[in-house]
Amino acid sequence: MDGAAGEAGRVPTLEAVRDAAKRLAGWAVKTPLLESPALNARLGGRLLIKAEVLQRTGSFKFRGAYNRMTRIPAEARAEGVVAFSSGNHAQGVAAAAQLLGMPAAIVMPADAPKMKVANTRGYGAEVVFYDRYKEDREAVAAKVQAQRRATLVRPYDDAYVIAGQGTAGLELAEQAAERGIRLDAALAPCSGGGLISGIAIVLAELSPGTTVHTVEPEGFEDTARSLAAGTRLSNPSGGTTICDALMAEQPGELTFAAMQGRVKSGYAVNEAEVARAMALAFEYFKLVVEPSGAVALAAVLVGKVPLAGRAIAVVCSGGNVDIGLYRRLLGEAA
Amino acid sequence: MDGAAGEAGRVPTLEAVRDAAKRLAGWAVKTPLLESPALNARLGGRLLIKAEVLQRTGSFKFRGAYNRMTRIPAEARAEGVVAFSSGNHAQGVAAAAQLLGMPAAIVMPADAPKMKVANTRGYGAEVVFYDRYKEDREAVAAKVQAQRRATLVRPYDDAYVIAGQGTAGLELAEQAAERGIRLDAALAPCSGGGLISGIAIVLAELSPGTTVHTVEPEGFEDTARSLAAGTRLSNPSGGTTICDALMAEQPGELTFAAMQGRVKSGYAVNEAEVARAMALAFEYFKLVVEPSGAVALAAVLVGKVPLAGRAIAVVCSGGNVDIGLYRRLLGEAA
Repeated sequence: MDGAAGEAGRVPTLEAVRDAAKRLAGWAVKTPLLESPALNARLGGRLLIKAEVLQRTGSFKFRGAYNRMTRIPAEARAEGVVAFSSGNHAQGVAAAAQLLGMPAAIVMPADAPKMKVANTRGYGAEVVFYDRYKEDREAVAAKVQAQRRATLVRPYDDAYVIAGQGTAGLELAEQAAERGIRLDAALAPCSGGGLISGIAIVLAELSPGTTVHTVEPEGFEDTARSLAAGTRLSNPSGGTTICDALMAEQPGELTFAAMQGRVKSGYAVNEAEVARAMALAFEYFKLVVEPSGAVALAAVLVGKVPLAGRAIAVVCSGGNVDIGLYRRLLGEAA
Repeated sequence: MDGAAGEAGRVPTLEAVRDAAKRLAGWAVKTPLLESPALNARLGGRLLIKAEVLQRTGSFKFRGAYNRMTRIPAEARAEGVVAFSSGNHAQGVAAAAQLLGMPAAIVMPADAPKMKVANTRGYGAEVVFYDRYKEDREAVAAKVQAQRRATLVRPYDDAYVIAGQGTAGLELAEQAAERGIRLDAALAPCSGGGLISGIAIVLAELSPGTTVHTVEPEGFEDTARSLAAGTRLSNPSGGTTICDALMAEQPGELTFAAMQGRVKSGYAVNEAEVARAMALAFEYFKLVVEPSGAVALAAVLVGKVPLAGRAIAVVCSGGNVDIGLYRRLLGEAA
């Protein structure tokens, strides 16, 4: 695990997140923390949405990828980078590579959403497909990496990636403080755990009264079970979900270490709940949220964490969804 | 025309817009100015979107309504306000009335989008329907106003309303300046002209090199024709459009005066162009934009103003669209 060596292999500190924020300034979007007074009145509490759908590349993933890739030494840049991803990390890496003038090859599942594949290519990256249900993406990526002597940019199990994603949490903490809001809880979608780890590292220091929770699709709640068990557990193989970005088999080693003592618990939501959350984001926030990006919002809406009289922040982590699926899910939720 | 008496009847100054901004601080959302590097690369220029869909009530209309209503003297507040609107001004007035503790009655067309009616009622306002094609909404509103001795909050022909909408332009100018962008042009959707007037007043002083343009749906381009003729012209009656918020018959008296020498020209777009702009906002900006809110974006996309090598800002003015229509238009554009 080259990514686990040295700095990249240790749980990052708040200072590492602040350093990432400096590197991202001017490149990443400082996404707004949105709120709907009308929805708050209906729900009886304050619901705040960290709108990472408005981030460069349409998801939070650019933050971690760019922070990680600025650490690649000058002499290694010509060989470029390789990454494996269902689509959002792919776009983040591809966009960062384009900005940093590096070639990029991205290993993506053959059934990845069309928009994610097209955008990844649009940023100038080469896409290498694999079969999500038959091949091991890490093995495919390792082969590409060896051929090109490229640098592997892991999707979550890398301290620089975690610190980069943590900048979303840093902004969240600052934006809440500016408005005088004491957050009772913060929830974010979770796959390998890079985003939630980064947020948890920040909030544990800047807002220790805020409980932090993961949200996953039903059948892929490995993190929820791992948190409850205190050890990393895997999902049964063969499951499917519309949340194409949240299909990691188990929490990362480093991300799970970061979650210890900082993330309180995890929740799972089903497809109908995700569709309703997407429709609510459409109606009240005018945001396009992809299924994976809507799970934390869904968890609050169905009452997994009480909102009445409290203030809760959820990350809507991505908005890269094909028009056909979006239309179908909005239709089901209407 | 009580609204045309005194201060409210004169073209507002930049100072009036700054004053409105102070009153709106903490109540209106300072909406982000969004940009997609991927889309910019495709278009060969910089396209900036002022995302008023993220404004309180889902459109820019809250700005003008709230600024206007803070001027209502304390002794007149108990009688409340009345307004006529196809839906976005309705929500803006209703939300402002709720915040200011005033009753509100809104005269709306019977065929207004369901979401706009439901939201207006959701802010506690009473909705009075009229037939858009048979009745005169100003007459209906005047009757309600006389019965209740309420204050009429005009949708555009009022200096405080124009100044309030102008705060969107003030933010736009400041946000562009912060990023070192010299705007070549700015476009906004236009019905009665409140938004474009407010923006033009600001840009004429703070960014005189920026040309300002209106955009209307085809068949309702009264402002484009009026600007070309130098006098206020009306639309032929009986036309229909999916742009339910842009059906004003002619420019306002005060708004047209404000446009003189400040707005260069107007454009018109058709339904298919609007649908494509909505799909593009979905794909690249993850924003839900209603048909009326997408016309300025549509005008740039179809090349009404050249973008290559230039920087152009468009206001996406509202996002209050019913799920059914949204799904249909995205489907047609896909």
